[in-house]
Amino acid sequence: MLQLQDFKSIVTKYKVIFFDAFGVLKNYKGLIPGIEHTFNYLQEQNKDYFILTNDASRSPALLAESYHKLGLYAITPDRIISSGMLAKEYLDLKVNHGTVAYLGTEDSAHYIERSGLKTLPISQLELDNISEVNALVLLDDEGFDWNKDLNKVINLLRNRNIPVIVANTDTTYPVSQSQVAIAIGGVAELIENVVGKKFIRFGKPDSQLFNFAFEHACNNCIIDKNDILMVGDTLHTDIMGGNKFGFDTALILTGITQPHMAEQYIRSTGIIPTYICDSAVIR
Amino acid sequence: MLQLQDFKSIVTKYKVIFFDAFGVLKNYKGLIPGIEHTFNYLQEQNKDYFILTNDASRSPALLAESYHKLGLYAITPDRIISSGMLAKEYLDLKVNHGTVAYLGTEDSAHYIERSGLKTLPISQLELDNISEVNALVLLDDEGFDWNKDLNKVINLLRNRNIPVIVANTDTTYPVSQSQVAIAIGGVAELIENVVGKKFIRFGKPDSQLFNFAFEHACNNCIIDKNDILMVGDTLHTDIMGGNKFGFDTALILTGITQPHMAEQYIRSTGIIPTYICDSAVIR
Amino acid sequence: MLQLQDFKSIVTKYKVIFFDAFGVLKNYKGLIPGIEHTFNYLQEQNKDYFILTNDASRSPALLAESYHKLGLYAITPDRIISSGMLAKEYLDLKVNHGTVAYLGTEDSAHYIERSGLKTLPISQLELDNISEVNALVLLDDEGFDWNKDLNKVINLLRNRNIPVIVANTDTTYPVSQSQVAIAIGGVAELIENVVGKKFIRFGKPDSQLFNFAFEHACNNCIIDKNDILMVGDTLHTDIMGGNKFGFDTALILTGITQPHMAEQYIRSTGIIPTYICDSAVIR
Amino acid sequence: MLQLQDFKSIVTKYKVIFFDAFGVLKNYKGLIPGIEHTFNYLQEQNKDYFILTNDASRSPALLAESYHKLGLYAITPDRIISSGMLAKEYLDLKVNHGTVAYLGTEDSAHYIERSGLKTLPISQLELDNISEVNALVLLDDEGFDWNKDLNKVINLLRNRNIPVIVANTDTTYPVSQSQVAIAIGGVAELIENVVGKKFIRFGKPDSQLFNFAFEHACNNCIIDKNDILMVGDTLHTDIMGGNKFGFDTALILTGITQPHMAEQYIRSTGIIPTYICDSAVIR
Repeated sequence: MLQLQDFKSIVTKYKVIFFDAFGVLKNYKGLIPGIEHTFNYLQEQNKDYFILTNDASRSPALLAESYHKLGLYAITPDRIISSGMLAKEYLDLKVNHGTVAYLGTEDSAHYIERSGLKTLPISQLELDNISEVNALVLLDDEGFDWNKDLNKVINLLRNRNIPVIVANTDTTYPVSQSQVAIAIGGVAELIENVVGKKFIRFGKPDSQLFNFAFEHACNNCIIDKNDILMVGDTLHTDIMGGNKFGFDTALILTGITQPHMAEQYIRSTGIIPTYICDSAVIR
Repeated sequence: MLQLQDFKSIVTKYKVIFFDAFGVLKNYKGLIPGIEHTFNYLQEQNKDYFILTNDASRSPALLAESYHKLGLYAITPDRIISSGMLAKEYLDLKVNHGTVAYLGTEDSAHYIERSGLKTLPISQLELDNISEVNALVLLDDEGFDWNKDLNKVINLLRNRNIPVIVANTDTTYPVSQSQVAIAIGGVAELIENVVGKKFIRFGKPDSQLFNFAFEHACNNCIIDKNDILMVGDTLHTDIMGGNKFGFDTALILTGITQPHMAEQYIRSTGIIPTYICDSAVIR
Repeated sequence: MLQLQDFKSIVTKYKVIFFDAFGVLKNYKGLIPGIEHTFNYLQEQNKDYFILTNDASRSPALLAESYHKLGLYAITPDRIISSGMLAKEYLDLKVNHGTVAYLGTEDSAHYIERSGLKTLPISQLELDNISEVNALVLLDDEGFDWNKDLNKVINLLRNRNIPVIVANTDTTYPVSQSQVAIAIGGVAELIENVVGKKFIRFGKPDSQLFNFAFEHACNNCIIDKNDILMVGDTLHTDIMGGNKFGFDTALILTGITQPHMAEQYIRSTGIIPTYICDSAVIR
Repeated sequence: MLQLQDFKSIVTKYKVIFFDAFGVLKNYKGLIPGIEHTFNYLQEQNKDYFILTNDASRSPALLAESYHKLGLYAITPDRIISSGMLAKEYLDLKVNHGTVAYLGTEDSAHYIERSGLKTLPISQLELDNISEVNALVLLDDEGFDWNKDLNKVINLLRNRNIPVIVANTDTTYPVSQSQVAIAIGGVAELIENVVGKKFIRFGKPDSQLFNFAFEHACNNCIIDKNDILMVGDTLHTDIMGGNKFGFDTALILTGITQPHMAEQYIRSTGIIPTYICDSAVIR
């Protein structure tokens, strides 16, 4: 039988808490009721915290703003670590010139614009003029025509051998209690299958995001991996990735992993969280 | 080195010839020049022939008409065996009542309308009224909004456990010399990945289409598997499927398998045609 | 909730019954108690029956003998349809001369010896003398040294482009209530991954075995697909394959699909049997 | 056409060089002739260097000794970064007590013994006494009975939900000019398929090994990702992993990527090295 533990008593054992966003802090209805108390408590206790998200659809500033609008002021832009930041780092280090094409909204292009490269939405790409395109970044499932622009992407990749970066590895995201939508990570798999290539994926469970966050958290401090707790609602991203990187992990049951299924999912996947808690709310 | 053989001298060894359509009889530009002579020759020699196609976007009558418009009159509707026919057989045998939802054009719905069931394009489906939907058929990549309607399909399948039939297993099809488009078989893989289920797929290389064609060809005759030659341009559909079913196979180099790559593809895939020929044209 | 039906009342609706073997007629302990009554009933009612098995480790004669030893005399060799028979048909039609190498016991080589070709266990293959080897057949998980002989197979396939036939698609088989063993189908996946090729697989759920059985059952009769009931304990082989081929299907809960998990497996896989029954025993 | 560059002139641009071992420094015949000059040059130029290897079959000390026996003294144990070290780190951080079972030789158990946990080769495991086994590590393809012990592993994992660590992600390794052997990474895929779980994999191309090496190289220095060159012979491990982590990469043609295939592999995989060089030898 599943043994639930008290989130507050767990948190006291760690110096830094990493939170997943969707399913932990908020859901399709808004904030998880009471979650603001958790951050009050963390601040009182002088514990550091960061949000690790695969959401590359908006900049940290816009993401933080979305929490402020909901009444949660503890999430400031410097607390947000998004897979989009890794896409930016990749472009900085590996793509020196030319144009970066992208799938996503204008907001999502934030991450690649900051790299100083010319950006081009796939909708504006002309297939007879692709010699300057030196990378393709998949950022968000919105902002393009799925039929027309995905076919354009296929043909771009058949005719130009360039790195493709997937800035969000999720395949779906919830839009209501019973409905989901296909995320850009799911679209990326379609394109990979069709062109027969494996793209560069950033985002949980890949260790590079956990490492990026770990370095970020350590900026002016001495911290070990076992000083950090990763809190998430999804076994195969938050928990698997956190475990592999060496963090302790807490599975939270307010999101995609529903209480009555948790035990069976853990057994069938072999992904074992250090703790299981009803929610991340500390009252 | 690749040893090419003369198509005419091969054909004389068989009683029935099965042809793939795209890349063998026609390409994005129109008919393969001279292909009409092949059918004149087959008729003179009293050899039977059939077209085996994964194209479920149109009825045999409309497919035959498309050849007639190009000037090839030898392809009559009764000569066409489409994966759409297997979708119809499945619905006849396994789905007795209710509504069949589909992705595709109105033309493609031909196959499921003939089963006598009520048909409903996904675009007209309402997600709060799905209790009558007893099957979903994926027919064609056109005729729906990829973003909106694929998300609808995901949610239909999350909330109702029904058989899903994929009537075209191809992942892409060529639209010009250098460009392709994603076919409904590629879209089906996206949906399978997202919902975590395996769908029922009809079409080459699956042996059920070869068997359907074999029975069709034998209607009033006594024929063995080794009386039949399967002619195609694609190793992993036409040749792999034909080989597995027990037919001799001829790889044709007027389509997707280009002459300079044929040898390497055969070696890397382990799919070995009985013969390799420049084209299916008999002059 | 799962609605169970009475096996006897279902059987009356069909002319021919196809049975899976393991989990339906027998398990690791011996015969399913009372199963002999089922065959008495079928014979009284003049209903035909066949055993469809992915077990290619022994000839039909030896398989039938194994039932006789357990006291079930209704299973005669002519009632057994094994995936090994399809391997034999393939070799007859597609491999005309030379040597067929194999992985398996001497008993399992029965199927390929009957094809008239020279057979060679991989253990006796010499890697500097492979020019006569024209096919490789994977028959059984016993009869060879897994480490030494699998490495030999890898190198044979790297140096000679030949068809590889997998005569049993199962990945595991039960050896006791709590333990399983890796079957040759699981070993085949390892080899496929390492050499990067897809092999020719016979056995449920592939439709070729169902078609072979259907033709076999129809030898001197007129029968339709909906006159046949496929009875099995495994959703993704017996039920998926039977459904796809157009048969009605009955899932039996005496084997791998345990009663308390049946409903959830059906929902998560989307493989829906026509009926669900406690067992195939008719008393 | 492929543009080859001079390895020496490339090396001058970087402060630290990371080398893959097999195919770059040595092959099945012994050292790549002249490779010792490369290390003389690096030492003269005060450039740092490390060996990044997926070989977890022996400790760094034993690996270094193997180079010394071949006459290459520049490879000292502290220069070797093996995927086995990450397995050790994982056990240190995540498995606090009990027994660690393993597949591999006694030499390979070095990495897990250093963690202070009790170690147990699978050959000595008894399946009715598994309650103390808290992790399984796959280390090497030798040192166990593939048939008996792999079946034991399957049943261990069916009856006990524990983390499984794969310390070498390679699927094969070369044993002569024309022959390869299956590596433990290939064996791991077999087990994953059979038990339906995804294991924790350390080793190139996973970014965690590159990160571990990066931190190791920086111990007492200030270094950026673009001060480092990753040199390897394999596109999908050395080059893909190096690129993703943000290093510049050099593909070397003395190993698995043969000169006449390099261009096509790069095009078909979309894995694009910064440079391509004949060899890593500096004369």
